[in-house]
Amino acid sequence: MAGKKYVYFFGNGEAEGTTEMKNLLGGKGAGLAEMTSIGLPVPPGFTITTEVCTYYYQNNETYPPELEGQVLDGMKKLEETMGRKFGSEEEPLLVSVRSGAPISMPGMMDTVLNLGLNDKSVYGLARMANNERFAFDSYRRFIQMFGNVVLGIDSAKLEEPLEKIKEEKGVQLDTELDAEDLRKLVEILKDKIKEFTGRNFPQDPWKQLWEAIGAVFGSWNNERAIIYRKINNIPDDLGTAVNIVAMVYGNLGNDSGTGVAFTRNPATGEKGIFGEYLPNAQGEDVVAGIRTPIPISQKEGGEQSLEVKFPDVYKELVRVGEILEDHFKDMQDMEFTIERMKLWMLQTRTGKRTGRAAVRIAVDMVDEGLIDEKTAVMRVAPSSLDQLLHPMIDPKAEKEVIGVGLPASPGAASGMVVLNADDAEKMSEQGKKVILVRIETSPEDIKGMSAAEGILTARGGMTSHAAVVARGMGKACVVGCGDVTIDYDRELFVGRGGAVVQKGDWITIDGSTGEVMLGNVPKVEPELGGYFGKLMEMADKHRKLGVRTNADTPHDSSVARKFGAEGIGLCRTEHMFFEGNRIDAVREMILAENESDLQDALRKLKEYQKSDFYGILKVMEGLPVTIRLLDPPLHEFLPHTDEEIDDLAYKLNKHPRVLKERVEALKEFNPMLGHRGCRLGITFPKVYDMQVEAIFEAACELKKEGYDVHPEIMIPLVGFRKELEFFKERIPGIAKKVFENYEMEVPYKVGTMIELPRAALTADEIGQVAEFFSFGTNDLTQTTLGISRDDAGKFLKKYEEDGIITRDPFMTIDVGGVGELVRIAVEKGKKVNPGIKLGICGEHGGDPDSIDFFHSVGLNYVSCSPYRVPIARLAAAQAAIRHENESQR
Amino acid sequence: MAGKKYVYFFGNGEAEGTTEMKNLLGGKGAGLAEMTSIGLPVPPGFTITTEVCTYYYQNNETYPPELEGQVLDGMKKLEETMGRKFGSEEEPLLVSVRSGAPISMPGMMDTVLNLGLNDKSVYGLARMANNERFAFDSYRRFIQMFGNVVLGIDSAKLEEPLEKIKEEKGVQLDTELDAEDLRKLVEILKDKIKEFTGRNFPQDPWKQLWEAIGAVFGSWNNERAIIYRKINNIPDDLGTAVNIVAMVYGNLGNDSGTGVAFTRNPATGEKGIFGEYLPNAQGEDVVAGIRTPIPISQKEGGEQSLEVKFPDVYKELVRVGEILEDHFKDMQDMEFTIERMKLWMLQTRTGKRTGRAAVRIAVDMVDEGLIDEKTAVMRVAPSSLDQLLHPMIDPKAEKEVIGVGLPASPGAASGMVVLNADDAEKMSEQGKKVILVRIETSPEDIKGMSAAEGILTARGGMTSHAAVVARGMGKACVVGCGDVTIDYDRELFVGRGGAVVQKGDWITIDGSTGEVMLGNVPKVEPELGGYFGKLMEMADKHRKLGVRTNADTPHDSSVARKFGAEGIGLCRTEHMFFEGNRIDAVREMILAENESDLQDALRKLKEYQKSDFYGILKVMEGLPVTIRLLDPPLHEFLPHTDEEIDDLAYKLNKHPRVLKERVEALKEFNPMLGHRGCRLGITFPKVYDMQVEAIFEAACELKKEGYDVHPEIMIPLVGFRKELEFFKERIPGIAKKVFENYEMEVPYKVGTMIELPRAALTADEIGQVAEFFSFGTNDLTQTTLGISRDDAGKFLKKYEEDGIITRDPFMTIDVGGVGELVRIAVEKGKKVNPGIKLGICGEHGGDPDSIDFFHSVGLNYVSCSPYRVPIARLAAAQAAIRHENESQR
Repeated sequence: MAGKKYVYFFGNGEAEGTTEMKNLLGGKGAGLAEMTSIGLPVPPGFTITTEVCTYYYQNNETYPPELEGQVLDGMKKLEETMGRKFGSEEEPLLVSVRSGAPISMPGMMDTVLNLGLNDKSVYGLARMANNERFAFDSYRRFIQMFGNVVLGIDSAKLEEPLEKIKEEKGVQLDTELDAEDLRKLVEILKDKIKEFTGRNFPQDPWKQLWEAIGAVFGSWNNERAIIYRKINNIPDDLGTAVNIVAMVYGNLGNDSGTGVAFTRNPATGEKGIFGEYLPNAQGEDVVAGIRTPIPISQKEGGEQSLEVKFPDVYKELVRVGEILEDHFKDMQDMEFTIERMKLWMLQTRTGKRTGRAAVRIAVDMVDEGLIDEKTAVMRVAPSSLDQLLHPMIDPKAEKEVIGVGLPASPGAASGMVVLNADDAEKMSEQGKKVILVRIETSPEDIKGMSAAEGILTARGGMTSHAAVVARGMGKACVVGCGDVTIDYDRELFVGRGGAVVQKGDWITIDGSTGEVMLGNVPKVEPELGGYFGKLMEMADKHRKLGVRTNADTPHDSSVARKFGAEGIGLCRTEHMFFEGNRIDAVREMILAENESDLQDALRKLKEYQKSDFYGILKVMEGLPVTIRLLDPPLHEFLPHTDEEIDDLAYKLNKHPRVLKERVEALKEFNPMLGHRGCRLGITFPKVYDMQVEAIFEAACELKKEGYDVHPEIMIPLVGFRKELEFFKERIPGIAKKVFENYEMEVPYKVGTMIELPRAALTADEIGQVAEFFSFGTNDLTQTTLGISRDDAGKFLKKYEEDGIITRDPFMTIDVGGVGELVRIAVEKGKKVNPGIKLGICGEHGGDPDSIDFFHSVGLNYVSCSPYRVPIARLAAAQAAIRHENESQR
Repeated sequence: MAGKKYVYFFGNGEAEGTTEMKNLLGGKGAGLAEMTSIGLPVPPGFTITTEVCTYYYQNNETYPPELEGQVLDGMKKLEETMGRKFGSEEEPLLVSVRSGAPISMPGMMDTVLNLGLNDKSVYGLARMANNERFAFDSYRRFIQMFGNVVLGIDSAKLEEPLEKIKEEKGVQLDTELDAEDLRKLVEILKDKIKEFTGRNFPQDPWKQLWEAIGAVFGSWNNERAIIYRKINNIPDDLGTAVNIVAMVYGNLGNDSGTGVAFTRNPATGEKGIFGEYLPNAQGEDVVAGIRTPIPISQKEGGEQSLEVKFPDVYKELVRVGEILEDHFKDMQDMEFTIERMKLWMLQTRTGKRTGRAAVRIAVDMVDEGLIDEKTAVMRVAPSSLDQLLHPMIDPKAEKEVIGVGLPASPGAASGMVVLNADDAEKMSEQGKKVILVRIETSPEDIKGMSAAEGILTARGGMTSHAAVVARGMGKACVVGCGDVTIDYDRELFVGRGGAVVQKGDWITIDGSTGEVMLGNVPKVEPELGGYFGKLMEMADKHRKLGVRTNADTPHDSSVARKFGAEGIGLCRTEHMFFEGNRIDAVREMILAENESDLQDALRKLKEYQKSDFYGILKVMEGLPVTIRLLDPPLHEFLPHTDEEIDDLAYKLNKHPRVLKERVEALKEFNPMLGHRGCRLGITFPKVYDMQVEAIFEAACELKKEGYDVHPEIMIPLVGFRKELEFFKERIPGIAKKVFENYEMEVPYKVGTMIELPRAALTADEIGQVAEFFSFGTNDLTQTTLGISRDDAGKFLKKYEEDGIITRDPFMTIDVGGVGELVRIAVEKGKKVNPGIKLGICGEHGGDPDSIDFFHSVGLNYVSCSPYRVPIARLAAAQAAIRHENESQR
């Protein structure tokens, strides 16, 4: 491996790397190289490749032998380009050391700026900049960052001296401190470093550099990074690159500054530079959310905006943004520094955006001719649509607004107030909805944020940690809400007008307007036209899979149809059993002691079911409606505590002992594998007969009224062909009776769930008597993996943590096991019955990765919950395009 | 189909049918045809084929149009042959009408004798026979049988008048009634018929004939027949033939008689005519067990024996037996009638026999040159070996004999006395062992007999219903025990010397000696040499599959090794957890609240486990021993009632509330799919570490003592390759530590159970890290079929009854589903790891049909419970021979 290239230089309009080398150079390194090549103003630097990271972890945390020399060479080139010398006391070359993985991991990895400074070179810097205050500000920043990132000291501990000095001087902002204050601060910080580490702050710049490089590689495996990768499904062996870049200075005075900008609004997708900056500041000041930054555009930032204060820089930034969008064909997220009125680009990457913005940007870019339709469809992460589909505050609702902050992530959310991440996790585990309220958030809060319905922070801007993470998670988020004063000790916050909100009180936040409201404010469904409608149109043009919905009520069916559902793939008849007083009739049926009681109960139930089916079939006029007959074991409908049993006994005029015996007799060791599904239908055929009759009667009523209805009867838990045959022989007789009564016929189908491994393996037998298969991947996952979903908590999380499994198999289909059975069943089913309709109605039907698999295996449709229908439509289109692209390769 | 042949004639040494036409003519019809062809004395007759039965049930219980003419022709031929006329008042031709399915179904189907008699022809018969008593005896038998079988009147009701007349006359036997008595009886019976049916007894012989034929076909689907077929796995669509045979008369006087005989002893296999006869009797008298018949041979029957009373007939019978054995190459079960000193053969078929007899006959016939070794191996039903392997009465045991009957089915059995079949079923379901004690048994008792450990009857011979059925079931059975007087009303019986035995009292019966004893008499293991040993030798020569055993203790291991086990396929470590006080240490381990308590508990457990493994590995010296690490969920080891929890809390010095919480926390919704198997090993690795250490330490101790040991460590419930990898990485470290301690190394393997569908489907991944697979078909059946064995009672029986499944999938492997997964896993496993060892350790490992499948799919071994090892050896040999034969076709 001697001579292997581990270091890639860029500067002076030339770069050894390109944007295609993202895996090797990381996103940041590749972006810097590419920007350099296309002539944008980028400070020179070099990138240590991700291969070094891999080597580092495979070789007991050591570097390849070639690395040292290559870094030395890189630094020499940098010195030549900049005309300064690393470690020089006269004209010191300072560098930033930053991580950069192939996939962006915001806030997760660590950065060190101003590296190269020491007690002597700080004076050289002061002389060069002719600004002593600047030099010591840079030095104290360097010590703080190095202390935190490299030496592992709590950042709050290193922030304390700064706060103390500001307090002593009676000032608010660090920009109000002078050179002498900062010189003192540097001494205090160096003492702190010695106190915590037992050694002096390193004065040798090379020592500083290698320690910083080591810290970057080390941070790849810090807990926050690991959690982020887990949440975002990023492989652990990708590794990070290290970028060493010549420093440019945003903290040289009020003619300098630093900022981040998007080429389009990441929340709405609106075209135009959108971002924030801080005058006289260095990089981390903006993203850390410590000082609230100023919007770039005049429209939002007014007189303080970059557009007004730095008009030339603003124009240059707009120009750079256009070049980058044109070059990368996507919205860019840029970091820049203004050094004495000159714009320097420090980073560019594809900008993260809300689902709403993603949709608009994709549609706009097609209109602008930047990308084609297929690319647009591929651009929007299906799961991000979720954000567009969340309820919004009802415009007619009365609301008591107690604060307005920045609308950082759209959608409205309500929940009980919690003031720290731990409480958020705990209460959420108890099934409570919570809103996490923090002064600001940090990476340690990620789990709590994930558990919350929404996030509210008192400080920070649109690019603060809270905002970025919440958008990624699709959670409603309001940030920088100065109206809110938080008191962690007393577990409360005070809003506008002195409104006191305590832990556990309900609030509502609107991430689209920034409003914070008392109580649980009513919400309404989102509008589905506009950009969303256009994108869906494009998606529908390309997808091959049909998309149906799982809905058990007319209301859900109607929501789903609005979302584009092309029928019902799963209507669970037993969900209706729990509505209103129906459960009484169900219990009468189960507990009937003689034929006449049973008939009475069944008669009542039939009327209920008939009216349900009537409503659903009506909403789904012209579309197929798959109705699954009774599935759960009977004991699920009975009470279990002594008290409940006594109540029911009284109601049914039975002896509690008799009832208890019946409840006891129905108990099962493993209900999941017990007396349920078609096993009930075979042992108690009258119940299924009643349901089938109700379906046909409802269908006939509707036909009489002129509706076009397509009921499909689905038999659950079939494992043997003869089980299905039992019903295939029985149902036509019921149909005939009903059709004769109504003097008409309604077309119908009879098919089965495939939710047992045996059903999949013998699909060539079952397929001969089924008109359709619907894969019940929830139960199929439980049986194939032998994992009870209800009991899996005790080990499945640990399995994910230990990497024994990479994805929760109940979220994303286990392709190797469950998927293999689906593949076998499709193949065998089609062999004996080429016209068989194949669908899937487990929860995987709404999961984009699973949908990709279902497309590839040749199903006809997926069925998912109403709110996931658009997601499924988009995912189906992406699957089609992806596989078309693959097959063209 | 016009002109299709439905009737096959035989008579005068010529027959239209042959023995090869068994499926068409039934066993009886084919036997009669064959016997006729080879010149044996058979009364002429004709057979209506099984195709008519099939037609009958497929065409709404009607006959093919050709049938009537063909029956008419057959009868005409019969009349010509016999020189008598059907329906004649002068010289009436009488016939028997008997069923005969392709597979013998003793006692299940119905027979009518003397058909053709009426009020006029009875006098013709009297004249012909010159015996009025005989004629009326025949007529009354005919009316009784016809009334019962054809008209469906309870046979007891038709027996009543006979009993009454005997009582009036003060005689014991029906042979003591004279012609006048019988003439009166006939009148009374005809009145009874009218009383029950509302119509006169039919006088037209043709009407009698067609009604009888209809009754035979109808009886194919009576409940008893259906149950028998279910128990014996006989397909329902086989159908029965009807045999119409000219009557010969065993009730013509004391120079006549009827009997059944075997060519070898069906209980022991000893060569020589063995059977019973009744003088002056007709067919059904013998098998019905109403009069106790007399043995044929002088040795057993003394002066009354056929050998002494009818020496010429006896010689003829021996000759016929030899001809038949030579012809059919198997032991024959013959029915015969002696009409005025002339022997007539009414039936021959392959004789049912005990397992012991089957073994001896097979081995003897090889020695006699009648059959070859492979045929001999194929001759013995593997499951029948069970009888040879059952414990015998300990010769040293003290026993209080209260009666001796006929030794009808070998083996000793103990249980609580029950006096009817219902009680037998009920108490057996409660887990109690019962002995069914009856005056005699009837087909209605089959379920109760099946539930009992053994059967004792007061009446009946070696071929009585009880004896035949018990031998078929492999149950210990003593029949015809005159010492016993049963009082059903008072629920007791009185034995020799007035010993009163009440329902619920324990008795022991010895089916090999006929002894009936008080109490639960100690038993010993059977001797395994002799004929059994020779047959096993032949089997071992031919089988390809290895046979291991499932054993958890040194004792079981030693039993299994004696039975020929070639290693242990499954040693369940947790079974040892329940021995003695060990459960305390297990509970301490589960409930440990800190590391030191846990270590203490593990230390104790390790010593226990080490001593177990030491014992087992020692017994299995030189053979592989597969040890499965902890499998069941932890809650199985904890108490569940409040009382037990309180006790344990006191013992462990913990607060009951704390304990209850822990017990509650460990509860699962579906334990079968829960936190068990390797999932425990991964979440609590110290427990598995302890077990592995115990295995290696035991192995080293033994090696130190000079033993050759081969431990194989088996990981249960693996579904993901990485689960197995977890242990493959962990175990070598433990091995190294132990081996260094002992300064030696012991060879070992690490493999996995394949008991989840996912494991089978991804065997090409798991196979890369496993040294062996052992199919856990119990759990694989539960997951593949989605059926919890514990809960299946509620529907699986009904499934069998309704024919939705043909075999209990927990008894015989479900080839279509579970078998398919085994096939897939074998194929995928071998692909990535051609040297992988493949076994099966579910209960199917001892089931002959399943073993056939495992052979065909290419496994290396099966593993079963110790007592099933010889069965598996034989079944494996049969599988090999069967598949060899098939591949040669």
